Amino acid sequence: MTTHPHPDAPDVIRSAYAQLAVTDLGAARWFWVDMLGFYVQYEDSGSLYLRGTDELTHHSLVLRKGEVAALDHISYRVRTPEDVDKAEKFFRRLGRPVKRLRKGEGTHGVGDAVRVIDPLGFPVEFFHEIERAERLIQRYDIRHGAEIARLDHFNICTPDIPAAYAHYKSLGFGCSETIEGDEHELYAAWMYRKQTVHDVAFTGGAGPRLHHLGVATHESHQVLRAADIFGALHKEHHIERGPGRHGVSNAFYLYLRDPDGHRVEIYTSDYYTGDPDHETYRWNVKDDRRRDFWGNAVIESWYKEATPVLDLDGRPQPVSDALLDESAVQVGADGLG
Amino acid sequence: MTTHPHPDAPDVIRSAYAQLAVTDLGAARWFWVDMLGFYVQYEDSGSLYLRGTDELTHHSLVLRKGEVAALDHISYRVRTPEDVDKAEKFFRRLGRPVKRLRKGEGTHGVGDAVRVIDPLGFPVEFFHEIERAERLIQRYDIRHGAEIARLDHFNICTPDIPAAYAHYKSLGFGCSETIEGDEHELYAAWMYRKQTVHDVAFTGGAGPRLHHLGVATHESHQVLRAADIFGALHKEHHIERGPGRHGVSNAFYLYLRDPDGHRVEIYTSDYYTGDPDHETYRWNVKDDRRRDFWGNAVIESWYKEATPVLDLDGRPQPVSDALLDESAVQVGADGLG
Amino acid sequence: MTTHPHPDAPDVIRSAYAQLAVTDLGAARWFWVDMLGFYVQYEDSGSLYLRGTDELTHHSLVLRKGEVAALDHISYRVRTPEDVDKAEKFFRRLGRPVKRLRKGEGTHGVGDAVRVIDPLGFPVEFFHEIERAERLIQRYDIRHGAEIARLDHFNICTPDIPAAYAHYKSLGFGCSETIEGDEHELYAAWMYRKQTVHDVAFTGGAGPRLHHLGVATHESHQVLRAADIFGALHKEHHIERGPGRHGVSNAFYLYLRDPDGHRVEIYTSDYYTGDPDHETYRWNVKDDRRRDFWGNAVIESWYKEATPVLDLDGRPQPVSDALLDESAVQVGADGLG
Amino acid sequence: MTTHPHPDAPDVIRSAYAQLAVTDLGAARWFWVDMLGFYVQYEDSGSLYLRGTDELTHHSLVLRKGEVAALDHISYRVRTPEDVDKAEKFFRRLGRPVKRLRKGEGTHGVGDAVRVIDPLGFPVEFFHEIERAERLIQRYDIRHGAEIARLDHFNICTPDIPAAYAHYKSLGFGCSETIEGDEHELYAAWMYRKQTVHDVAFTGGAGPRLHHLGVATHESHQVLRAADIFGALHKEHHIERGPGRHGVSNAFYLYLRDPDGHRVEIYTSDYYTGDPDHETYRWNVKDDRRRDFWGNAVIESWYKEATPVLDLDGRPQPVSDALLDESAVQVGADGLG
Repeated sequence: MTTHPHPDAPDVIRSAYAQLAVTDLGAARWFWVDMLGFYVQYEDSGSLYLRGTDELTHHSLVLRKGEVAALDHISYRVRTPEDVDKAEKFFRRLGRPVKRLRKGEGTHGVGDAVRVIDPLGFPVEFFHEIERAERLIQRYDIRHGAEIARLDHFNICTPDIPAAYAHYKSLGFGCSETIEGDEHELYAAWMYRKQTVHDVAFTGGAGPRLHHLGVATHESHQVLRAADIFGALHKEHHIERGPGRHGVSNAFYLYLRDPDGHRVEIYTSDYYTGDPDHETYRWNVKDDRRRDFWGNAVIESWYKEATPVLDLDGRPQPVSDALLDESAVQVGADGLG
Repeated sequence: MTTHPHPDAPDVIRSAYAQLAVTDLGAARWFWVDMLGFYVQYEDSGSLYLRGTDELTHHSLVLRKGEVAALDHISYRVRTPEDVDKAEKFFRRLGRPVKRLRKGEGTHGVGDAVRVIDPLGFPVEFFHEIERAERLIQRYDIRHGAEIARLDHFNICTPDIPAAYAHYKSLGFGCSETIEGDEHELYAAWMYRKQTVHDVAFTGGAGPRLHHLGVATHESHQVLRAADIFGALHKEHHIERGPGRHGVSNAFYLYLRDPDGHRVEIYTSDYYTGDPDHETYRWNVKDDRRRDFWGNAVIESWYKEATPVLDLDGRPQPVSDALLDESAVQVGADGLG
Repeated sequence: MTTHPHPDAPDVIRSAYAQLAVTDLGAARWFWVDMLGFYVQYEDSGSLYLRGTDELTHHSLVLRKGEVAALDHISYRVRTPEDVDKAEKFFRRLGRPVKRLRKGEGTHGVGDAVRVIDPLGFPVEFFHEIERAERLIQRYDIRHGAEIARLDHFNICTPDIPAAYAHYKSLGFGCSETIEGDEHELYAAWMYRKQTVHDVAFTGGAGPRLHHLGVATHESHQVLRAADIFGALHKEHHIERGPGRHGVSNAFYLYLRDPDGHRVEIYTSDYYTGDPDHETYRWNVKDDRRRDFWGNAVIESWYKEATPVLDLDGRPQPVSDALLDESAVQVGADGLG
Repeated sequence: MTTHPHPDAPDVIRSAYAQLAVTDLGAARWFWVDMLGFYVQYEDSGSLYLRGTDELTHHSLVLRKGEVAALDHISYRVRTPEDVDKAEKFFRRLGRPVKRLRKGEGTHGVGDAVRVIDPLGFPVEFFHEIERAERLIQRYDIRHGAEIARLDHFNICTPDIPAAYAHYKSLGFGCSETIEGDEHELYAAWMYRKQTVHDVAFTGGAGPRLHHLGVATHESHQVLRAADIFGALHKEHHIERGPGRHGVSNAFYLYLRDPDGHRVEIYTSDYYTGDPDHETYRWNVKDDRRRDFWGNAVIESWYKEATPVLDLDGRPQPVSDALLDESAVQVGADGLG
């Protein structure tokens, strides 16, 4: 199992944006813009380009009108234009499907990019160039809803967690936290490039599927406010789990499902991981605080349901079953029987 | 059914204190003082007298060492010394057990009092005189744990909600909110004398039993902090339900169980009910936001478990089953099947 | 000096609403509705009728288009219709100007009322009947700006604090806190009918003038948010003082000036004063925490500027100078030299 | 003026710790440990080694008993042991005083290090090796006072801001924000290596002196709580400025002075600066929101007073006057006349 960065890996800066196919763009706009507080940076007839109010690049979420609710791709920003070339070579060498998109061929606002199906079966884009956007950091007057500040991370369902760990290690990601069994068998891992707990995390389960997008607010009262607004409109069925405190990452969380069932985590509080010798913190799968620090039960749908992902031609990817099933470990915070 | 104040009812000001029997005073002290932040106003070999930091009278909670975990009594303060006499006559006229306690005979710090077993079977004290206590309102330096500011209310389990409603109406209580069926059959009611949502509330169920004590903090982050401290000490099993937002009362809540299983609600946010024509707000039992505004499931133990109550001689009161079972109404927020 | 309720005083429930004359109704709407988050219950060509989202009666603030920025009147709700008659007799007996307004003659939404010029020179209304309004307590979806929940109190400038104290004592108000000199000479007092720190407070200074309206939010982050929105729009000149913690009342505060210079305090946190023997808490005028618990200097304009008040015919009342000048006491938190 | 990283500069990771000389170690402990919530990692007869609860290395603040209150040194962590050598060569090449400290010769817990007097006259240490410390991130039970999570930055007074900017640019620091005159003359700059607004900032003024240490909490209510505790103990004179919102950095702040007059900023909220093309945001010196986003006046002592710094032999460094005086620019938020 590879656990070191590959010398030819592109230099990934951070998780940058996700593109979701949604079946009703108006309903999606209500959820992501009106309720969550994303800012509409750009729109055309079939898509919305959204960002949080702390973000200085063109978008961190693209909602595309589609026939089927799915993930088009997740996308990482790399340090230099040359890193896009390195990404292309890296995945070609792995024998994975690769598609190069010159500026104007891909997502609006993004320059030269490469899209691949990675070894885990996920559609992933790497790019360097992206349009700048007006600074909204202090535009308190336009904040509303959950007051989302920025994209924080992707959480993906994959059946083989050690393989996912090894792949992202080869891309130079650090590992902040894991959930492990007594024999150190990996149930889940949180991995980062930017100096936070994660840019990507793996939930054991049938995959490739997108478990959720994690988006950040500044303080916990903004998370409570989001839940309150859903309740006020009698739309509380969009709330799937929480609010609660994660054991892993220590973040205060709220999981919502959008009108297509795409899951989003509103996430606040985090810690610095930027030191070069930052150590992985390991949770035992039997510690019932790992998923909820207060021992509250995990909702079954949270373990079982996820968003299908598309291939480079826009067709749904086949899904494989998980090797290890964390939800089968009967402890307090899961409460699944 | 009586729904008007009785002309001879004592003038109740507010819910004043509860006295609980606990089997391990040291464990109870850890929970209520170290973790919840109650201030120890006085203690003797067998009891702790506690108050919140906003409270200006001697105690709002007495923990008495006992063989069996139980409620000794709940206690209301009345407006004048004469109202103690009125309370005695009121309950004698109802043919209920009554015990008069002159100053020094009853609870430390409390003057002349009368204790009764009310028509619902609960041990209830009425008093006027109570020792003053040093003002701690601005002693931010001694706040810790959940930073409890004051007692807010008693919540009691009783099998016959309309009877409970009628009894408290006869005592001059207003009704802020109810849970009702389609035919207005009462599942629960929230009643007040002070200008908040409640001093007492009724949960349908086998009774007489104490469902919980409600204690108030100023802001929601203090509720989150309380939960975080329990998690930090791996004592998360004391967390039974929440944090969450109640539909009824609109309060942000957290339910904890003390080492004896006594339930306490940490409660914040509330609204003014002091206008003389304040109208009752009625929730339908099928609105899944009534118990949790975010639609999260109620925990079964929260509906089923409660504290036994003692009679005036310290013996456990017999318990009757409920007439209507709210937890049997299968809606989203209950999730009980 | 009278310090007891007069036996014929009307039974005041609470501070109910203020009516302000504003010179530009559009600018006032921006400030009070868009920025502070008041809800527009009703409007006609010359007036806006506003309430906070916790309030269940028709309005707590009326903004009337006028030639001159001024206070039309403050208004108290009384317990019964008969208390309106009692108020009329009470002020006629004092030889004060009195005007009876039958339903339809006075403020929209308010029934039978009496307006007086009280012994302190202030235009004050007493009424019982007021229209109910839709419950917005849980309408988190319409909250915005400072998310004002309710009117809390009036603060009035008057040159003779002992006289103001005696007048309000005669009306049955309790006194929660004072600022006093070494010889107990009164510099300021906070008085209440509802079970909070105050419905009315007196600031020593030339009067009669309205110092400010106090309006309440639920939590301190909402106060910070209000200030942030003013900064975001480069309208920070509306911020006069704060945010800060008051010594008196322990409230977290922010003072703003509306486009006409009317001052409003956004106010959160408070304590219960409903016990019949609630004791007055006395601050020494030399304790630099009395006005700001953190010792920050008071802004000079906050001491010196205030809103003129009108008589019953709409003409400005003459103003008398103060007998004692608190701002002349040179201590840390004043910093006025 | 150099504005590019020098090819031989050491690779700085982040601001790591400061060492202050304090005249009364007990008084300093009260301030930094009891009041601010720093954790005592280690102590010996003459020093306290402190860290915030999010920090995973041995200390971020050392308090050393000394005859004179002063800054011993600020310290940066570098990426590799070789970067310590690079730092030594870098400053020797500049002709600056340099002192190499082998493990055991320098600060407890820190390995091989180099200390220099940088071109701005500041004593600065560079090290790579530092002891790990137990993870306290989720020890909510030991949090108290201001609940400081970590060191955030150093703010230094220096008379020549362009020189300071050029020096830190040569060390590879990015610049997040500046305050500039109409001709782009630099009044202040905020510079970073970790992905936050800053690791170091420059305040124009007589120097070299330490303006303040910036330490971070997670949420704004923790900042308010810190101020409240100082007020509660009648120690409000330790509060110099704030709480407030900075225009620059958008952080919510509170400035305190320790018993020796050393200034500390409690700081919360920040934004991500990790993208390689992150642009500098420029404030005009006449925008009265730059220092306080709410337009509140800056306190004169905040501009004028600061901590002297020592040379490598522990003698106070001479101080030079500023070239440009921001406090002389008469705008709203300064209010200095």
